[in-house]
Order: sequence, then structure tokens, then C-alpha cells
Amino acid sequence: MKKAAGAEQSHPLFRQVYQYMHNRMERGEWKAHDKLPSIRLLAEELKVHRLTVFKAYRELTEDGRVYVKDKSGYYMSPVSSPKESAEGDGAAMSSYMLANPMSDIQRMPVSYQFSQALIDPGLLPNLFLSDYVKKVFDLYPKVMGTYSSVQGDEELRETLSRHFREQHRLHLSPRELLITSGAQQAINLIAGIVLGPLDAVLVERPTYSVAMDIFRRLGARLVPVEITPEGYDLQQVEELMRRHRPRMFYMNPTHHNPTGFTVPAQQRKLLIELAERYRCLLVEDDPFRDMYFAEPPPPPFFAYDTEGWVIYISSFSKYVAPGLRICAVGCRYPFMEQLITAKSLADNGTPILNQKIFLHYYTSPRLQQHLGKLRIALQVHKEIMEEELAATGWEWTPPQGGLNLWVKLPEQVSVSALFVRAMEQSISFVPGEILDPVGEMKSWLRLSYSFAGEGVLREGIRRLAALAREL
Amino acid sequence: MKKAAGAEQSHPLFRQVYQYMHNRMERGEWKAHDKLPSIRLLAEELKVHRLTVFKAYRELTEDGRVYVKDKSGYYMSPVSSPKESAEGDGAAMSSYMLANPMSDIQRMPVSYQFSQALIDPGLLPNLFLSDYVKKVFDLYPKVMGTYSSVQGDEELRETLSRHFREQHRLHLSPRELLITSGAQQAINLIAGIVLGPLDAVLVERPTYSVAMDIFRRLGARLVPVEITPEGYDLQQVEELMRRHRPRMFYMNPTHHNPTGFTVPAQQRKLLIELAERYRCLLVEDDPFRDMYFAEPPPPPFFAYDTEGWVIYISSFSKYVAPGLRICAVGCRYPFMEQLITAKSLADNGTPILNQKIFLHYYTSPRLQQHLGKLRIALQVHKEIMEEELAATGWEWTPPQGGLNLWVKLPEQVSVSALFVRAMEQSISFVPGEILDPVGEMKSWLRLSYSFAGEGVLREGIRRLAALAREL
Repeated sequence: MKKAAGAEQSHPLFRQVYQYMHNRMERGEWKAHDKLPSIRLLAEELKVHRLTVFKAYRELTEDGRVYVKDKSGYYMSPVSSPKESAEGDGAAMSSYMLANPMSDIQRMPVSYQFSQALIDPGLLPNLFLSDYVKKVFDLYPKVMGTYSSVQGDEELRETLSRHFREQHRLHLSPRELLITSGAQQAINLIAGIVLGPLDAVLVERPTYSVAMDIFRRLGARLVPVEITPEGYDLQQVEELMRRHRPRMFYMNPTHHNPTGFTVPAQQRKLLIELAERYRCLLVEDDPFRDMYFAEPPPPPFFAYDTEGWVIYISSFSKYVAPGLRICAVGCRYPFMEQLITAKSLADNGTPILNQKIFLHYYTSPRLQQHLGKLRIALQVHKEIMEEELAATGWEWTPPQGGLNLWVKLPEQVSVSALFVRAMEQSISFVPGEILDPVGEMKSWLRLSYSFAGEGVLREGIRRLAALAREL
Repeated sequence: MKKAAGAEQSHPLFRQVYQYMHNRMERGEWKAHDKLPSIRLLAEELKVHRLTVFKAYRELTEDGRVYVKDKSGYYMSPVSSPKESAEGDGAAMSSYMLANPMSDIQRMPVSYQFSQALIDPGLLPNLFLSDYVKKVFDLYPKVMGTYSSVQGDEELRETLSRHFREQHRLHLSPRELLITSGAQQAINLIAGIVLGPLDAVLVERPTYSVAMDIFRRLGARLVPVEITPEGYDLQQVEELMRRHRPRMFYMNPTHHNPTGFTVPAQQRKLLIELAERYRCLLVEDDPFRDMYFAEPPPPPFFAYDTEGWVIYISSFSKYVAPGLRICAVGCRYPFMEQLITAKSLADNGTPILNQKIFLHYYTSPRLQQHLGKLRIALQVHKEIMEEELAATGWEWTPPQGGLNLWVKLPEQVSVSALFVRAMEQSISFVPGEILDPVGEMKSWLRLSYSFAGEGVLREGIRRLAALAREL
């Protein structure tokens, strides 16, 4: 991967001037028939050549936003051009104002929480960690007084580098790792570097809705790739890469959220070849690797990559201490250089305290014990949910790991109606529609079994099933 | 303030298509004389009207990037158009690739650290805080297992709301506060909402260089406002607002970084009237309010604002525990709604652990004691630096607060030569040029007296002065 992504953002200058004036007009700075700044004045103000301003005004005139009174200059048109609106102006851009519907759902406090793919706090080693934190302060008495480096604490990166090599066969040197505050920040930084308006981005269907919100806000086009128990259809993927020339494929190929599917090993290598051929970055979000029920999943895509086409996002604090928000991004240079700059402008580095607390614990034997217990507890949660759903006639593929059931309701039950009723009864889940890049999948919903305790889980699912029967 | 900022980002669709194809060409997807996708195909792919694609291709043809072979379609031109380069294409955009020079300087480990406007870790209440943290875990045993809300911990926002009202006469309800991970994240989120390519942004001259890096990356134009011991020249500010229609004024009006100047109270009210008249947001970065030497500074701009034109950034963890990275942004609705969305996409909320640790301590009597001592210690540091500089003939205005001296060297000494020599001798400072929006101020430098301990401070400044004499 030679050419750095993000280097291609240059617009011809006159189009920037056009856009700039366009924005000022939208903001209502001038009324109809007001005189607009002269070419000379605007050229001086923006420090561009007069010809550049001339071209911008010519475009605005063509668009019907501006008219020329001969020799006396440019004036604001009384109405905006019908040409523009007929063209569906802003169709791609209205997305700039999209909110984050997942966050809206999760902000609501409910008694039966099935919308959060988080771990039940009762399953976390809280007391152990509290004690442990005290040791951190003995080890690093000045930790509160210190800023992190932008890239992240060196000791942590060294530890993770070793851990990735030993546990997952990933060869990432400490300088190929960057610490972010959660996986979402990683996705946001990467997308901000790679994607511009109308750029295509491949996403699984269904997928993590917040990632879609991030891509949409950047004006990118979402191109869906179906994910099934067998993984992807690589012919479909190649066809989409050929047609859409996506800048990146945002993927969550291991115990996928929300379906729980895992892309098989043999597809991993082949897909990397496609990525290379079509110059498409693979952004591999891998938060559920440790949460398998029977067998550990195949190695990450990153392990098969030799040319630097995979960016690896590994977030692990979720299983230990979600409050810490520690995530590592692994990638090669020169992309890492850009990522460091983006991180330095975003927040200048993740708090060192959080990194130090996380540091020793993550690779300790105690953690391995904790993960082992957590896997069993999650499997029990999953089985309770499946038991309670058994009589409903709802359909799902039993997941081999992860935190969710991806459930299909009978056609005659409206998921959106069920959602409204459920929220009234203090039960939350995620309607499938939100997780579908094309906004369909109206018969589906995501039920997270990870957050609610066993009793609440059983009772909540019973109530949800009863509500569905009523509908 | 009625119309939400950021709502005006819509581009005409055909220009997006133009840009999208332009980017693909820049990426080298086609060689000279390659056939480009047909209008029909591209229209289908991008889900736009064919006329829209036609317009985009017409522009590309006019630019000389594409040529038409009659009836058979569009082809890639052999060379990019000389018109474009003559126009200075990318002049405004090359800034997209700017790094963060301040961060580069500060990444270098040195013995005599005068480039970091941070507090000497020896002056921070580290031990007290370490003990204190243990109490936090007793109070909130599950704090490590909990995510924050996007907007920030409610208890913290309530406490800060009360504190702002009592200490600074600021009326900000808890829902008008958002917690970010440091002031820089706040600036980055706000700028991302408000600024687009070529939009003007007022900045003080000199100013905080990382803020400029953020604005440049968004493609904005920096318009400098001189800051002097008397504050701003309001006539100049009005003239600049009238001419450039800036979307925002990024200001640090209290113990300003790097000069230490404070904008007087009477100017604050007047400037808000200007902001309202010219629809220019005032983004008030206020990190040095507590670090005064003689008298407390005048109230923030925010205290004078009735119409919601001021966004207030208050970062305080710096004086207590920089490792925590806690900052609060205060603003009115609807801007707050946009800020919450931006924060939700950026990282979904600042870690709760950091917020809870900060929470009780910040308003405790112990903190007030600590701040009192810190003010005295900083004043001592400042006086040591001034003593050592007294015989140099260098010039500065003694600051009434803050963490820096802003120093002018005699014309015959080259600051950039001094910088290179100083770094060789393990002494760092910030060359004034970096802090100047127009890249001049080549005789100036910023010396932070806050970070080095007293002995190191004295010795380092002696060495620096000796180096300058040699030059």
C-alpha cells in the first residue's frame, strides 16, 4: 500500500469558492436582489486569483442562484434554482445531520435491558480491580500528573505487541499500535482519514449502526455485503469492489454483531487478495474474539495480511472494565502516521491512568481465569434466552460466540409496533431496521443476552414474548 | 441563535459526483486514454439522475481531465490540465495533510522542558489523589464496569453547574454541560460542527497552534485578530467580521496562551454584541482562569451572553490531575444537541472512571488550598525565569497569570537557529512562528515556566541565554 489514503482530498479551488459562497447564501446573508461582493474584493479576501472567483460566480449564475446586472456586478437571485431541487440536492448530504439512533435507544433507562451489547456488571471482576487499582498507584505514584503520548503508553503497547504475537499470531510491533478510547473512536478516526463524500464503503448487512452513522456523516455511500452463517459471498464482494471501488470494507467477521456469524478461515485469505487487487482497506473490528462458546475462532484477517491492507481494531476493556475504554488499533506505515496525526488533533492521547490500570491486568493469569468464567456465564445467559424463546416460533441461528441473538419474527408481527409496546413496558431491544444499511430487515431484532442478570433476563424475555403474542 | 450551525453543509449533487470522480482519478484508477464508466452506469451506481452525472462529466471535460470521443463515451486525458495548476489548485487544501508541529516538538524528551504548558508533576497533589482514588472505588464499586452517558456523568454535571454558578456567575444547567476528554477534544468537536472548507475563523495572533491545525485540517481560513495587553482592537474585529463573515472566533481571552494577556471586562460585552450582529460564534477557551497571580480575572464572556453566541470551554483537570483529561463545554440548545451527537460518534462518552475521580475532588476545600499553593508556586517559577532573562535584553510583558512568557528576541538573533541549537542541548521551547496564524513572528518564542522544577528552570534558562549570546 504505497499511496497514503486521505492524500486525495484536494478540490479545485474555484469549487471551494463556489461552495463557500453557496454556504453564505444558504445562511441567509443576502436577501433577493442584494449586491454580492465584487470579484476583486472576494479574491482579495480569500487570497485567490480573480479568475478563480470569476469561475465560481459563473457557476453560481448557471445554477440560477446569482444574476448579473451588466457591468455593475453580481446580485442575489430571488429564488433558488428549481434545477437544483429537481436534481435532489442534498440527498446524499442530509445524512450530515443524522443523529445516532442506537445511542438514543440506549440512553433510555429500562428494567429489561436487551439493547446493550455490554457485559452484566455483576460478571465483572469489580472488587479485584478496585484492589488492583490501588497497586497501580503504588507502582506509578505520579500517573495522575502525566499526559499520555499521542500514540499511547509505551509499556502498554509493548505488552500488547507481545500478547498479540503469543495469543493470536499477530505480528505488530509497538510502533504499529495506537491506543484509542474505545473501538468507536478508532472507527471514527480511520473513517475520517479514508472517506470523503460519495466514496463507497462496504459494510456487512446487518452491521453495527454507529459505524454506519459515522460513515454517513462523512457523506459516504454504504454498500451492503450480506453476511450469512457461511460468511460472505466472495463473488458478490468482488463484484461490489469492481463496481463501486470502495475505499474500505468495515467488517466484524468474528462472532459478528448482531448475527454472531464467523467468516471461515479459507475466506479470509481470499478476501485479502481481493482487497489488494481493488485497493480496498479492510477495517477489521474484532471485539468478540475472546467470547467464544465452544472453539476459539480462526485467526484475524490481519494475520493473513502481508501488504498492509488490513487495519485491526482490538477492543478488550469491554470484558474487564468497560469504564476504562481502552482499545488498540494495529496497522502498518504510512497509515499509522496519519492515524497518529488524527488522534493528536482529536484528543492528544487517551488518558494514561486508564492505560496503566489496564496494562498489567490484561495479560495476567487472573484475566485468563476471568475470561474463562465469563464465557461460561455468557453461554448460560444465551441458553436462558433461547429457552424462553423456544415456544415463540421466532427464528435465529444459535451463535457460537458474541453477545447477541439475531432473531426473525413471523411476518405478521410488526417489530416496530413491538418496540413501542416493549419500551412502554420498560423492555428494550434493537430493531433490525437500524442495523440494516438499506433500512429494511423489518422483521428482525437484536436481543443482547449479555447485560441483564439471569433472573431479569428470563422474566424480560417472557414479557417480551407475551407482548408479541398480543400483537 | 436560531439556525443550527452545520446545517448548511449541502453541496449540489453534481459537484459531489465531480469530486468523487476526481478523487478516483487522483488515486490512479485509470491510465491515460482509459474508457471511463458510462453515464448510465455511474448514475445507477451512485443512485443519482443521469443529468447529474452528465454535468459532472462536463465539468471534468472543461477542466481537461476527461475527453469525449464522439458518441463512444468519456476517456481519461493523458495529462492533468495546466489550467488547474496555474490556479493554485489545492493551495487551501494542502493543509489537509498538515501534521501537528506542536505535538512533534513536545514528543521529544529533553532535560530542560520549556515547550510544555503543563504543571510540574511535583506541584500536583499526587499522593493525596492516590489515596482519594481508593475512596472513589469504595463509593462506586462498579465504576469500572459502567459506561458513561454520552453527555457525561450526571452527578459531575450537577456539581459543575453549581460550582460555575457560585464561583464564576455562570448559569449553566446540567443539561447545558457536556464532558469531553480534554479541551482539545472540545475544540475539535465544535470546529467539526461549525467549519467547512474556506469558512473564515477568527483566531488571536498569536494563538494555540493545535487549534489552528484543527481548523486548517477542516479547510477553514484563519483570519488573525491581534491581541495586546489592552485586549483586542474592536474596530479591527468588527471590520474583520464584516469582511470575512467568520463562522466562529476561537478565543482564549483570559491569561491568554501564549502572551498571558487578559481581555478587559468592558470589551467582553461589546464583543458579544458584535458576535450577535455578525452571527459569529465565540468559542471561549478558558483553561487559565484559576492561575492568576494578583487579582482574579474578569468573568468569562459566557457570563455576559444572553443569546447563546458563546460556547464555553472550561478545562480544569490540568491543575489537579492532567492524566484524567476532564473538560466541560457549556452552551445553549440547539447547539448542545449537535455537540452530543458529535461526541456520541467520536467516542460515545468520556470514561466514567475519570469523571468520578475528578468529581468530588474538584469542589473540595482541599482543591481550593491546592490552587492557592499552585498559584504561588507558579509565580515563583515565573519570577525565576524573569530573573534569569533580565540581563539578556529580551523583551516581554510580565503576565498576570497563565503558564508562559511570550518573549521577543533582538532582531539579530534567529529564533529558528536558536531552536535547533537548543534542541541539540536538550532544551525545548516553542518558536513563535508556529503560534502565528500568518507564520511570521520570527523573533518570538514561548517559554513555559510551569513544567520544569525550580533548579532545572534556572539552569535551563541560563543555558538558553548563553546559546543565544553565541549566535
